[in-house]
Amino acid sequence: MSDFETNNNDMRLKPYRKDFTYSYSCGVFPTIELITSRPEEVIKLIITEKGLSNSGVLKLMTIAEEKNIPYVIDNKTAERLYPKENSYAIGAFRKYTCTLRSDKNHIVLVNPSDKGNLGTILRTLTAFGIEDIAIITPAADIYDPKVIRASMGAVFKTRFQMFASFEEYLNSLADTVQRDYYPFMLNGQPLETAQKQPGNVFSLIFGNEASGLDDSFLSVGTPVRIMHLDTVDSLNLTIAAAIGIYNFTQGAFQK
Amino acid sequence: MSDFETNNNDMRLKPYRKDFTYSYSCGVFPTIELITSRPEEVIKLIITEKGLSNSGVLKLMTIAEEKNIPYVIDNKTAERLYPKENSYAIGAFRKYTCTLRSDKNHIVLVNPSDKGNLGTILRTLTAFGIEDIAIITPAADIYDPKVIRASMGAVFKTRFQMFASFEEYLNSLADTVQRDYYPFMLNGQPLETAQKQPGNVFSLIFGNEASGLDDSFLSVGTPVRIMHLDTVDSLNLTIAAAIGIYNFTQGAFQK
Repeated sequence: MSDFETNNNDMRLKPYRKDFTYSYSCGVFPTIELITSRPEEVIKLIITEKGLSNSGVLKLMTIAEEKNIPYVIDNKTAERLYPKENSYAIGAFRKYTCTLRSDKNHIVLVNPSDKGNLGTILRTLTAFGIEDIAIITPAADIYDPKVIRASMGAVFKTRFQMFASFEEYLNSLADTVQRDYYPFMLNGQPLETAQKQPGNVFSLIFGNEASGLDDSFLSVGTPVRIMHLDTVDSLNLTIAAAIGIYNFTQGAFQK
Repeated sequence: MSDFETNNNDMRLKPYRKDFTYSYSCGVFPTIELITSRPEEVIKLIITEKGLSNSGVLKLMTIAEEKNIPYVIDNKTAERLYPKENSYAIGAFRKYTCTLRSDKNHIVLVNPSDKGNLGTILRTLTAFGIEDIAIITPAADIYDPKVIRASMGAVFKTRFQMFASFEEYLNSLADTVQRDYYPFMLNGQPLETAQKQPGNVFSLIFGNEASGLDDSFLSVGTPVRIMHLDTVDSLNLTIAAAIGIYNFTQGAFQK
């Protein structure tokens, strides 16, 4: 694990595993997001020969030079890391940790299990101006390249923090502003009737894909539900999160 | 292709291909939706031995008996069709066609390319009471088992119709009610400012995952956009569709 600390440039990068201290962005767009938002964590960039005629790759190389980030043209390593992807660019980066800001809006995901879902939710919340996400473990590995890919690199623009329980999350918060909690549950009140309180910040809380939130969340803040027909059992988690986030930020981006 | 018409019960089912005249639902929940909503199209049900202790499978077998739908316990066929799935139940069904209703709300997807996205959108529109979906080809194959799986079987509750062009879709509609068209485009007006007209029906139009809608849609009805920060390039198609559908049906399901 420590070999890249001591021997950074010569390290042999391996296909991602959860126990690694580093991970990868794969693809031009996520890698531009990586070196733009988290340049200090980049170990190196790998560019493939066929990417050299791509305008996004040229942009990537320009940013890398400005930021003194090393890059190599290395088809073999790209092929070894992503045999099926045929990708133009890969960014290797050190895993880093963040701390949530107590005075900002939060999304709280309780035990999200699907990497694609986690990435899509990161992309959605970033689009609507939320930058802080709490993840209650066990959960999908946020550093996994599949999460990064599904987020289109939005993960690098967020602050994420893992907690072993919802209580641990609550205890981590400073009491500087009034915070309203909205667990999304099948037996909550209709979402449309829950109005955001001016001046307060909010935490929107979503459960696991299969099991949702357990009844203990009925006593947390204002439980809400997205009204829909019972023609489907439930909404996809990414869809529920998007509707919830849109509802609470709607109108904030009118020009 | 015609072999199952002439020799229905003895046909040897093969892993799905787009040119087949039949397809499969895989998994207990989608298969319950199949035999509940489209019993006349079911060829047969395949149940695996380990499914026999599952309550969903028992429900499935009860419905099948009520509707005189044949089922077999057949681990080998299930394994051959879905080697990785370890599934409890599979439903083989004849592909069928539907006709959109001219007096109902529509979703129009122009060249959707991802099977998972198409299925997720089917699930979302069903949840919010829209049952008619137009698909402008080329497009992902709506009969593909991956679409059916992603829809959780909601596809069987919808009417879907494929058109070679948007013009062909327009020409197919009877003029019985006033219809308002809302293409979702980056240069449309803010979604929040577009109010549904009472008494009219609507068509919400979404473009391809990568390319969106081309500029020809600027002259179609009222182009709208979902306002978001430029921190992300665009929203995921399933997310944009969900926010659009929710916005136009919001409040319709309050009790």
